[in-house]
Amino acid sequence: MVPHLITALNGPINELEQRLLDATPVIERWFRLEWMEHTPPMYCGVAIRNAGFKVAPVGTNLFPEGWHNLSPDTLPLAVQAAQAAIEKICPEAHNLLIVPRSGPLSSFYLANLARLTEIFRMAGLNVRLGSIDPAVKRSTSLALADGTTLTLEPAQRQRYRVGLKHFDPCTILLNDDLSNGAPGILEELHEQYLLPPLHAGLTVRRRSRHYQCHEDVSKRFGKLVGIDPWLINPMFTDCGALDLRQPVGLDALRGHVDAMLGKLRRKYKEYGIGEKPFVVVKTDQGSCGMGLRVVRDARELEQPASRKGAGARAPELPELPAGEIVVQEGVLTNERVHDAVAEPVVYMIDRYVVGGFYRIHADRGSDDNLNAPGARFVPLPFAGDAHLPHVGAKGAARTPNRFYMYGVIARLAMVAASYELEATDPEMQALA
Amino acid sequence: MVPHLITALNGPINELEQRLLDATPVIERWFRLEWMEHTPPMYCGVAIRNAGFKVAPVGTNLFPEGWHNLSPDTLPLAVQAAQAAIEKICPEAHNLLIVPRSGPLSSFYLANLARLTEIFRMAGLNVRLGSIDPAVKRSTSLALADGTTLTLEPAQRQRYRVGLKHFDPCTILLNDDLSNGAPGILEELHEQYLLPPLHAGLTVRRRSRHYQCHEDVSKRFGKLVGIDPWLINPMFTDCGALDLRQPVGLDALRGHVDAMLGKLRRKYKEYGIGEKPFVVVKTDQGSCGMGLRVVRDARELEQPASRKGAGARAPELPELPAGEIVVQEGVLTNERVHDAVAEPVVYMIDRYVVGGFYRIHADRGSDDNLNAPGARFVPLPFAGDAHLPHVGAKGAARTPNRFYMYGVIARLAMVAASYELEATDPEMQALA
Repeated sequence: MVPHLITALNGPINELEQRLLDATPVIERWFRLEWMEHTPPMYCGVAIRNAGFKVAPVGTNLFPEGWHNLSPDTLPLAVQAAQAAIEKICPEAHNLLIVPRSGPLSSFYLANLARLTEIFRMAGLNVRLGSIDPAVKRSTSLALADGTTLTLEPAQRQRYRVGLKHFDPCTILLNDDLSNGAPGILEELHEQYLLPPLHAGLTVRRRSRHYQCHEDVSKRFGKLVGIDPWLINPMFTDCGALDLRQPVGLDALRGHVDAMLGKLRRKYKEYGIGEKPFVVVKTDQGSCGMGLRVVRDARELEQPASRKGAGARAPELPELPAGEIVVQEGVLTNERVHDAVAEPVVYMIDRYVVGGFYRIHADRGSDDNLNAPGARFVPLPFAGDAHLPHVGAKGAARTPNRFYMYGVIARLAMVAASYELEATDPEMQALA
Repeated sequence: MVPHLITALNGPINELEQRLLDATPVIERWFRLEWMEHTPPMYCGVAIRNAGFKVAPVGTNLFPEGWHNLSPDTLPLAVQAAQAAIEKICPEAHNLLIVPRSGPLSSFYLANLARLTEIFRMAGLNVRLGSIDPAVKRSTSLALADGTTLTLEPAQRQRYRVGLKHFDPCTILLNDDLSNGAPGILEELHEQYLLPPLHAGLTVRRRSRHYQCHEDVSKRFGKLVGIDPWLINPMFTDCGALDLRQPVGLDALRGHVDAMLGKLRRKYKEYGIGEKPFVVVKTDQGSCGMGLRVVRDARELEQPASRKGAGARAPELPELPAGEIVVQEGVLTNERVHDAVAEPVVYMIDRYVVGGFYRIHADRGSDDNLNAPGARFVPLPFAGDAHLPHVGAKGAARTPNRFYMYGVIARLAMVAASYELEATDPEMQALA
């Protein structure tokens, strides 16, 4: 089920979108069966790009921090999904500890925490915030922009459990992407549910692994609904470790980029697409939106040394990433909100789509990374009367759910994430 | 979880409501554990009366027909709940057959069917309507008030399965209360899920059994939250078979009524309630709202023969019910919508509260049965910004969810119905 939210799409429905809308019962059944075999992540935020001819996920965040960006009218959906998740994980649960990110917390992040707290409180849990930031030594009251406050308490480790003073949670909900690695206080928690698990942390995840899982999912799904999987899956090349400070590393990267641009030109020709293809060079490991570089031509890839002498263009170009490198097909976004380039971000709890928002950026182009400073967020509300039943009326006017396609693409990315987490689960590896 | 819908309640929150609001996490956990032990009905509509000092269910409908009375903005909740139900019952399901009631179908009932169809279609099923009315001999197109149409097809029995021509459903959703008994075409369906089951039909259900189950549930729940169970449970007396055409039967009924009015006067005195207690005389078996009679004094109970001679008052009094009789405590309703007496009706799918509406009646009093000709229905929409998170703000203004109490009372009635269905399940009886 995908709620009918208002999207910025108002053009005609193209073949791909119509195919997905028509196949709704088949698609929903397929997801039901997937979730019988695989465990969905506790929650997930998926950024999507819609180029018109293709639609694909460009970021699958397992520690979503934008809950406050969801339209308030979608809150009951999130609560109901949270309730379904709790019933599955730990129906006896009384208490939930949310572990926020460490370091200074912005007012936006606090609003995110407030919304998350509200969702799980309304689902029937006592929710408290336990910080693992060593700087948080005592219970601290944090003021929100709306005049309310949140209380942040230092998380305490006692043998095999984490909690607060006089607060023993059954489940710990992580809202920190662990970009500095797994903190000791959260390791070896065999008596409590830690969700998402430590191996969902950014130092463990590899983009190449996620992309490979997504390719597998897309192939199977493409077969199901009868579409070329490329229409929902960006190509990628795992380049391995490249030292881009050395000419040999840069040459290898240029080779990968050239090869992919060639493949893309052929695909674009096959589908009669007039746009210019581009790729994104990324580190295999790293947080969403960081360490990316958009490349339209392999010749753009210069050594930092030569860049210094190149003059005017150099300051615009971000530093080339170092280490393990992935080259991924870039996906244009044709969506616009208030004239700004926009990409939808779909939020899920357990296996349910519970809302979404647009990430927009006034200063970026349709082939740029929007997950960058200056981005703003526009909630997607429910589509008022548009979702009133008009069923059975063949040929009668019926407002299609333009958000449906995004709900499908986002859940495919979530299925891929579940494959990925299975592949990296230390317990499964111990059994294997 | 109970969605925050706008109720007509705007007075101060009394002790009972506050107790339930404060105990939210305890209550939600209790329901979670109940649903681990017991199977909720597929869907359920519970009419509730709020007298201020006490709140209780007055009708638990296992074949709810008012889905079109729910506010359209609550539709996604119903869809998500339907999806959770399908995942549990038959995740491989492709097809769902809805069996509507037989006989002439009003435009209201067709709107109800359209909404039900929409809910399960959006949950990912191919939904078709299969009539078991022998008068429906071929596929029939039915026009709805909004200009759309529904197609009603004759249900066909083939050995152990029911379906349509070229349509084999995994699950059959009954929307007929079976007030004429179980139809042969639906018996012995061992290969398909028939929900609700045949023994939920009106000729099998007994009010006394439901009330007894509800009393048991209320006692346990009262202990949990520390309240007198009477505050959420109407008293009842199972009078057995009484022939009210005979003086001996009428005398026995007067005795039961007198005894209950006496008990109620003592309870009212204990709680300092200034109202005049009343009881409702009902047949033990029968459809909601039918065969009821409100009695304020045992002397009102006259033999039909003497009533004929009593003149002016007689025409107002409905016929006394015949057969097995139950006397139940009457519960006042203090809610008003547009000056009309109102009672909330809460709708649930599986274990989730998914919406509600008010049943109002301009020509009835606060102690009358509102489930009668002339009743109108007012949808309860989501409480706009009222459910925005304002968490953690101790003492800060926080709009309480006045619908919560109704969501709790309705689910208690649903738990009682699940006990009741277990007690009357022929398969369980065969095992015992």
